[in-house]
Amino acid sequence: MAKKKSTSDDTVSKIKTLRKQEISVDTLTEGIFKGDKAMLAKAITLLESTQPTHFEKANAVVEKCLSRPVESIRLGITGVPGVGKSSFIETLGTTLTALGKKVAVLAVDPSSSLSKGSILGDKTRMQALSNDPNAFIRPSPSGSSLGGVAQKTRESIMLCEAAGYDVVLVETVGVGQSEIAVHSMVDFFLLLKLSGAGDELQGIKRGIMEMADAIAINKADGSNVEKAKLAVTEFQRALHLYPPKQNGWIPKVMKCSASENTGVREIWDMVEDFARQNKENGFFEKNRKNQNKNWFLQTVDDHLKQFFHQKPAFIKVQNELLKEIEQNKVSPFYAAKLLLDKITKEL
Amino acid sequence: MAKKKSTSDDTVSKIKTLRKQEISVDTLTEGIFKGDKAMLAKAITLLESTQPTHFEKANAVVEKCLSRPVESIRLGITGVPGVGKSSFIETLGTTLTALGKKVAVLAVDPSSSLSKGSILGDKTRMQALSNDPNAFIRPSPSGSSLGGVAQKTRESIMLCEAAGYDVVLVETVGVGQSEIAVHSMVDFFLLLKLSGAGDELQGIKRGIMEMADAIAINKADGSNVEKAKLAVTEFQRALHLYPPKQNGWIPKVMKCSASENTGVREIWDMVEDFARQNKENGFFEKNRKNQNKNWFLQTVDDHLKQFFHQKPAFIKVQNELLKEIEQNKVSPFYAAKLLLDKITKEL
Repeated sequence: MAKKKSTSDDTVSKIKTLRKQEISVDTLTEGIFKGDKAMLAKAITLLESTQPTHFEKANAVVEKCLSRPVESIRLGITGVPGVGKSSFIETLGTTLTALGKKVAVLAVDPSSSLSKGSILGDKTRMQALSNDPNAFIRPSPSGSSLGGVAQKTRESIMLCEAAGYDVVLVETVGVGQSEIAVHSMVDFFLLLKLSGAGDELQGIKRGIMEMADAIAINKADGSNVEKAKLAVTEFQRALHLYPPKQNGWIPKVMKCSASENTGVREIWDMVEDFARQNKENGFFEKNRKNQNKNWFLQTVDDHLKQFFHQKPAFIKVQNELLKEIEQNKVSPFYAAKLLLDKITKEL
Repeated sequence: MAKKKSTSDDTVSKIKTLRKQEISVDTLTEGIFKGDKAMLAKAITLLESTQPTHFEKANAVVEKCLSRPVESIRLGITGVPGVGKSSFIETLGTTLTALGKKVAVLAVDPSSSLSKGSILGDKTRMQALSNDPNAFIRPSPSGSSLGGVAQKTRESIMLCEAAGYDVVLVETVGVGQSEIAVHSMVDFFLLLKLSGAGDELQGIKRGIMEMADAIAINKADGSNVEKAKLAVTEFQRALHLYPPKQNGWIPKVMKCSASENTGVREIWDMVEDFARQNKENGFFEKNRKNQNKNWFLQTVDDHLKQFFHQKPAFIKVQNELLKEIEQNKVSPFYAAKLLLDKITKEL
């Protein structure tokens, strides 16, 4: 008996075929607009490529996708490893697709830059969601800098939205910088916590808690329920110590169990409440505009850098100076000055 | 009875006076070469300033300091909050000054970018060391990007070394990026751990453990001693799973108690063994050269950015485009392209 191929298998084999082909900007964009997952995946791969020709093409696709306005909610999700992010996303994602939504899951994961791992890594950790025709899961791009990784994720959000994904979940893990990056690209920022997870992370929590629009105490099941209730009260008290948010939103603390699927739907309802309230008072739009401005400024910096690094004269002088540094003939600091003097004199 | 002013008080009042004065590059550099802490602090402040004139001056000081070769050991120290980094540094630092060394303590702390806090924050956490005439403690610079913060720390290392500090401790906390930044500027990377601190950080640990030259199980005192011994064995086993380091060094696992001052001296002896071994096989020098090359490349990128952001024509177009983004007239992505086209056409 022939084994029936799953949708997921089909997509995977399609991606493999596409990988070898050169596809035009129009084909890619049309594919994305039709919601073709393989084309979407291919476009994101181009975006993440370091080859200049790929980069050009990816930019053209992003530009076209941006011309297509979409109603979406972008939800950032953070929490230390072990808090159950994958299963939370799995449960939330399948809840949302059951509601008729299309869900994209992206990740910003700087911690994997050395081990080349990824938070999402093994898609088996989100088995139901990765086989769901209305869900698209993309692991964290690998990259040498958090800025670069974050930038690509931001652009990937746009591509997903153009492909009709009206909920975009952006997962992250870490302390500080990666959360700040994700916070700067989402409408709502959710912090997952465990009850009684110890105080050793208190130092970390402060900055992150300040950014959170809600805290969800996960794994509130079995013998944990009582502890979770206590944690809810504690965190509510802690959140009162922060200055009120500009948009008037009071951060919520809720409990849930991703594995038993309790409380997750309530968290989504709260996110929708937030979106409604912020659309009414104008802060939803205002926040996105501010994010757009920052995105612009970051893109300019990234592209400026790229512009020089492609110039043969720049590369030549840079390589000469690298050799002199190797021979201890010049200090790195002075070498930088020499290179810049040379380059900027030519402008 | 008149209260005797401590050295520390004297330095503080001197810094306050210096803060108001414009001091020449030569005065600063001479002060640093003499080991004057107030001058060193002032120079680092200039380095951290965002004013272009300060930046120019700071660069000139760094350049002069780099011309003075120094024998030093740069030791990176990381670990989650609660692991006892401050007390470890306090104990290690006083041990080193007792050995006749001069110790500088710097920090890279991206987690504080929102709360404006600092790991070292309150110097009272290192009371003995901050009053020690042979120690210099500098909190983490605040900055908008980890890259910027790391860069300033790197340059601060050079200033401290020029001031005669032959051991530079660079403290950090975080997951991934900040550790990678610190790893890229030190000779030896030490990871502090607690025994039985739970598995929730396992996901984080992997990348960091890969970078560690040694793991120290801290708080190995009282009823913790047995657990710490077990942890040593476990981590030794875990470290065996990583590929061997290029320099031939086998990462060590040791236990210590900063509060009881046991095991700390042994850790320092190991660091010196490492330095000796790596100087003999050439990897110490090789590593520093590689770090210098990266430092050069990063400095070039930072300065290129700065160069444009100071140009009136650039600022003008950028502001116009920001307004258009605000009015939803142009996408951030396309706006970046417009600005770059304009700027690069003029080159």
